[in-house]
Amino acid sequence: MIKTSLPKSRRALLLVDFINPLNFPEAAQLAGPALEAAASARELADAARAHQIPVIFANDNFGRWESDFKSMVKELGKGRSPTATMTRLIRPKSGDLAVLKPMHSAFYGTPLDILLSQIGARSLIIAGLATDICIQLTAADAFLRGLDVHAPEDCTAAETPDKKSRALAYMADILKCETRPWRKARWLKKE
Amino acid sequence: MIKTSLPKSRRALLLVDFINPLNFPEAAQLAGPALEAAASARELADAARAHQIPVIFANDNFGRWESDFKSMVKELGKGRSPTATMTRLIRPKSGDLAVLKPMHSAFYGTPLDILLSQIGARSLIIAGLATDICIQLTAADAFLRGLDVHAPEDCTAAETPDKKSRALAYMADILKCETRPWRKARWLKKE
Amino acid sequence: MIKTSLPKSRRALLLVDFINPLNFPEAAQLAGPALEAAASARELADAARAHQIPVIFANDNFGRWESDFKSMVKELGKGRSPTATMTRLIRPKSGDLAVLKPMHSAFYGTPLDILLSQIGARSLIIAGLATDICIQLTAADAFLRGLDVHAPEDCTAAETPDKKSRALAYMADILKCETRPWRKARWLKKE
Amino acid sequence: MIKTSLPKSRRALLLVDFINPLNFPEAAQLAGPALEAAASARELADAARAHQIPVIFANDNFGRWESDFKSMVKELGKGRSPTATMTRLIRPKSGDLAVLKPMHSAFYGTPLDILLSQIGARSLIIAGLATDICIQLTAADAFLRGLDVHAPEDCTAAETPDKKSRALAYMADILKCETRPWRKARWLKKE
Repeated sequence: MIKTSLPKSRRALLLVDFINPLNFPEAAQLAGPALEAAASARELADAARAHQIPVIFANDNFGRWESDFKSMVKELGKGRSPTATMTRLIRPKSGDLAVLKPMHSAFYGTPLDILLSQIGARSLIIAGLATDICIQLTAADAFLRGLDVHAPEDCTAAETPDKKSRALAYMADILKCETRPWRKARWLKKE
Repeated sequence: MIKTSLPKSRRALLLVDFINPLNFPEAAQLAGPALEAAASARELADAARAHQIPVIFANDNFGRWESDFKSMVKELGKGRSPTATMTRLIRPKSGDLAVLKPMHSAFYGTPLDILLSQIGARSLIIAGLATDICIQLTAADAFLRGLDVHAPEDCTAAETPDKKSRALAYMADILKCETRPWRKARWLKKE
Repeated sequence: MIKTSLPKSRRALLLVDFINPLNFPEAAQLAGPALEAAASARELADAARAHQIPVIFANDNFGRWESDFKSMVKELGKGRSPTATMTRLIRPKSGDLAVLKPMHSAFYGTPLDILLSQIGARSLIIAGLATDICIQLTAADAFLRGLDVHAPEDCTAAETPDKKSRALAYMADILKCETRPWRKARWLKKE
Repeated sequence: MIKTSLPKSRRALLLVDFINPLNFPEAAQLAGPALEAAASARELADAARAHQIPVIFANDNFGRWESDFKSMVKELGKGRSPTATMTRLIRPKSGDLAVLKPMHSAFYGTPLDILLSQIGARSLIIAGLATDICIQLTAADAFLRGLDVHAPEDCTAAETPDKKSRALAYMADILKCETRPWRKARWLKKE
């Protein structure tokens, strides 16, 4: 068994619930903006990899308690649905990390705290679905832990533009998140 | 994606670190007793499955943060090493559950609390490796949570008989665990 | 030392940050609505006590790590400031419980999970300050834990009516909270 | 209200359960060695204070959920019992910090993680009662968090010499604690 040695980085990228069956009632509304967000997040993730910033998939287990993210990715990547397109767009590359979350926040009931501490990350870039639920609740937990959060507005999606903009306003105002598009991130300018 | 619907049960079986590369310095001493414990634990797990008691693999990620237990099992099950023999003996069956742990206790940085609460389990049977480390530290966390623990002495192993017996004595005396062999378990008698 | 024996109840009332120095920049705006909310919450707490529903103060430690809630109440209750008035209105009565929180959510870094589990509470009434910060973040953590939450709109306050109404809408829509005034609570009707 | 500003220190001293009603069945056996340990721990605490090492009382709430450590200290310090003597010997001084714990480990259901992180402490000196229960379980949780632990053998006590020596051996062997008497601590030599 080859052991992954964890990278050290002040910053990490969290990709939340892009691997997603989109089988809940509101998913029809979410699919379009989700695909757009995933396309941006794919570029963001490639840039993060190029900058040696660890990419962490923090994905719902969707009620499957098998600790088997790879099979989820494989299964959901098949076919022509929005789910399949999004999965193929965003899927993990070699060296990426993954935690499976049982609830909405990526911190609750997961090893994310331990992983970030081992990496040395104090700053988190959060992308994913949906802005007002899993993204906002993950950002809230990051805020309680004193982490700096950047939740780029172009890498997240909600069911309606209004839900998205209210969530981003809350994250900016109360949770002290940056919400600028990902290409405005400070770490990009260090090139 | 087929969703696992969680069983309801007052009792759950935890299999700790039987899927194990055995590549640390003390592993040579551990391998023999570990295989014996795994053989007993396999019978225990089959009995638990027959009684509709959920079987939960609580396994170290051994530094691999990929949330990919299935590939670990597949990889470690190959060949003729003690690891491979033990893996083939104990490996998950359909309907079994799994959480990956980053540290020694199966509760620390894992969704085990949430999983046990959703199952409704208040009583835990703990089997695995090594008695004085991951088993004892998992039993300690179960004790703090007010769970009843049965750690059957024939389903666990340590590097030396002395380390094993001292750990079992501590678990019985301080952590209020039952340590009788698994065939003495009360739930078996309900047949 | 007289030991408090914990009551058993399916329901508990959480009073969040009413004991409050109100010494942050935005406090001037908050003081008026906070006093109104405290007056309602005082009636709510008296009704809860009459119904044998445990009253739990979940109060910020405001950077004092002395585990000394009683002295905080005594000190802040002196004088004629809004803080003093509010403190005298809402202060703990015999049999009330208290946890001190270091951050915004009443669950983060506190024994609240353990306390609610020992009480047997599955349903939480949350009152306090401020609606969009500590109340909403506490409600989010309650939601992740599968607790039912009632956050009565007349027992909470924010800096502006708009902040309050957006927070209540989020709690109702995403976190599945009831937000009706406290006199509409179902448990009251059981009299 | 005067706010405590937290000190910054790589090291912190934890005093566990010295404030103790000693009203459980085995307490008669524990009282003698406990007083001796408290006398040493008092000297250790004074040395820590002199070195600007934060002193943190991590004390059981003994079933009182009032977040009122000061009253506990006052109440238990009255009279001529071993409890009263020990309380007067070890009681908090100005600038000391306190967390109340509901269970055996000082980390479980307390803000200790957050407090240590705000202080910047990566190394913990643990003194208190009883070696094989609250001290060992606290040391185990510190070990899981990657903290260095020094549990000086002269500042801790158990019901019997045998229980104490087995606990110290476990902490040294498995939990990688130093157990030398406190006067051998490395930080003392920096004077």
